[in-house]
Amino acid sequence: MTPFTLHPRLGADSFFVRDLALSQLRLNNVKTVPWLILVPRRPGISDIHQLTGADRALLMEEIAQASRALAALYAPDKINVAALGNIVPQLHVHVIARFATDAAWPDPVWGRVAPEPYEAKAVDEIRKKLDKNDFWN
Amino acid sequence: MTPFTLHPRLGADSFFVRDLALSQLRLNNVKTVPWLILVPRRPGISDIHQLTGADRALLMEEIAQASRALAALYAPDKINVAALGNIVPQLHVHVIARFATDAAWPDPVWGRVAPEPYEAKAVDEIRKKLDKNDFWN
Repeated sequence: MTPFTLHPRLGADSFFVRDLALSQLRLNNVKTVPWLILVPRRPGISDIHQLTGADRALLMEEIAQASRALAALYAPDKINVAALGNIVPQLHVHVIARFATDAAWPDPVWGRVAPEPYEAKAVDEIRKKLDKNDFWN
Repeated sequence: MTPFTLHPRLGADSFFVRDLALSQLRLNNVKTVPWLILVPRRPGISDIHQLTGADRALLMEEIAQASRALAALYAPDKINVAALGNIVPQLHVHVIARFATDAAWPDPVWGRVAPEPYEAKAVDEIRKKLDKNDFWN
């Protein structure tokens, strides 16, 4: 069995936050909007329907947990959830806090927000806020 | 209890295919890519995490069913799944067959494919292909 390895592009563009039951939770390195990425730790999967039913159920609950965490921390106007993967085929789900005042609103964020990276200190603070058991149980 | 009513914009821009356990399955009226929309028949819900856990489990399985139907009918290179809703707040999930040769690839489709509508005859044919019990059980 091939072990799970994170796609190098995801590794380069986002920060590890914590391992959930199924997915690795990561913070996308774009400071324009609070943007989480869930990467199910299953090798060779590119689309949601390729996961087992049990893994899909876990993924759905992790999407809900990530949404609730963003809602609690940022009080956004909307949560955007998307599994696209046209560029990075490894299955990963974006969970993004959107605001009627953000740079891309009401469009989707891809290609419409500047890929402005976080400062290291800001990343540490956000990870600390996110990495609380209350959000992930 | 408020009954479920389809948002008028979703009604105007897509065609009814069938009612699944949770969601209304619709075909988006954009002929550039095969594009399904799942609308959970629950009033007052805009984000996935606002659904009950039982409804989220149903939604996840309907996403997988829609993905498999598109995979079987169109053999796409990738399935894109997204709940955005920045313009139409009623929760709805896009399930889209993507091809390395399509007009927007590898970008997301929103704002990047011409909203060219289907001819009526084509809609009837696609609905007939989609509306098979095998895909939705």
